[in-house]
Amino acid sequence: MKHIAESTVRRLSLYLRFLEDFEQRGLATISSDELAARGGTTSAQVRKDLSFFGSFGKRGLGYAVPELAAKLRDILGLGREWRVIIIGAGKIGSALAQYRGFRQRGFNVVGIYDSDPAKVGKRVDGFTIRDLTTLEKDVAKEEIDIAVLTVPAEAAQQVVTRIVKAGIGAVMNFAPVQLQVPDHIALKNVNMAMELEGLSFALANRTPLND
Amino acid sequence: MKHIAESTVRRLSLYLRFLEDFEQRGLATISSDELAARGGTTSAQVRKDLSFFGSFGKRGLGYAVPELAAKLRDILGLGREWRVIIIGAGKIGSALAQYRGFRQRGFNVVGIYDSDPAKVGKRVDGFTIRDLTTLEKDVAKEEIDIAVLTVPAEAAQQVVTRIVKAGIGAVMNFAPVQLQVPDHIALKNVNMAMELEGLSFALANRTPLND
Repeated sequence: MKHIAESTVRRLSLYLRFLEDFEQRGLATISSDELAARGGTTSAQVRKDLSFFGSFGKRGLGYAVPELAAKLRDILGLGREWRVIIIGAGKIGSALAQYRGFRQRGFNVVGIYDSDPAKVGKRVDGFTIRDLTTLEKDVAKEEIDIAVLTVPAEAAQQVVTRIVKAGIGAVMNFAPVQLQVPDHIALKNVNMAMELEGLSFALANRTPLND
Repeated sequence: MKHIAESTVRRLSLYLRFLEDFEQRGLATISSDELAARGGTTSAQVRKDLSFFGSFGKRGLGYAVPELAAKLRDILGLGREWRVIIIGAGKIGSALAQYRGFRQRGFNVVGIYDSDPAKVGKRVDGFTIRDLTTLEKDVAKEEIDIAVLTVPAEAAQQVVTRIVKAGIGAVMNFAPVQLQVPDHIALKNVNMAMELEGLSFALANRTPLND
């Protein structure tokens, strides 16, 4: 497959949400214009985004809503369960451990880890916090797909090196630091301060910003 | 000013982080090649991103690290304090209220709100949870710049309409729903499940994804 830009994948996730909304409202077909309007983009962009994955829709008739939604779920890998661990049982890690939106999409949090002896063994929202020293053993046994990293910045590189070595192929990093991972590892960085900087930029420059 | 794409602003935030790292390590100048390598982009992209905001760097000498960092802080609106409120004192709202990375960048959380009588008045990390009914009065008095929305999806549109009417110009939305706001409002959506979908896409399609 061609290399797909991250911004394209984000838009596919958005289109899927709109389609599910249309589905709930009983709409059978939708035009690329309508999808584009909801997503704040152009119909040409919608058609281009979808064209990477085959031919959808009929000229003049638009897209069949349930079919396109099913296809997007398939493209996004949402037809199966993904096994997720969270590393770092601080505030954000604990909040994510019980986030309902994950399970609804097939992201199944199976464990949360910390290296702090004061936290290990404590219960948090149905999870018993695991000792980080057991990471490698657990990953081998439990076939973990994705690790969510909510450790302090100074610990993040060391932990991600262990994650990769243990065989996990995808990492969502909340630590405010640029991690080095091999090319075959999927890495996403979520940086709350950077998100706010998009807003301060818009306010400082009086530029509308609407993603 | 020309319209600046959100992806450009994100890269500026990233460049700033690299420059601050270089600054700490005592580097005086940096080439666009080195900045590009750290950011996983091209030197042409770096030069294009910076060219929106004036002329930087000297041919063959690169960029002066402290000057470019200062300029980026200025462009991103980081030379001043931004007053932030959080609406929704659930797990994620509470985690964000005490997130140190915000204050380091000048984002000063001044209050956290909830509409649940069982939560209002309780203390959370140095904040007394405020009653959402006082929002309009507080915003007028406290000159709030940015609202972070961590309420349930079904309440989000109603709350954002109040936020906008109260005069707040920027909203960071964590509710998994597409909000309608006037064009002059800066809106950023952070959707944790969508971030994970970027990873499931990469795993399902065996495509490297490295932002």
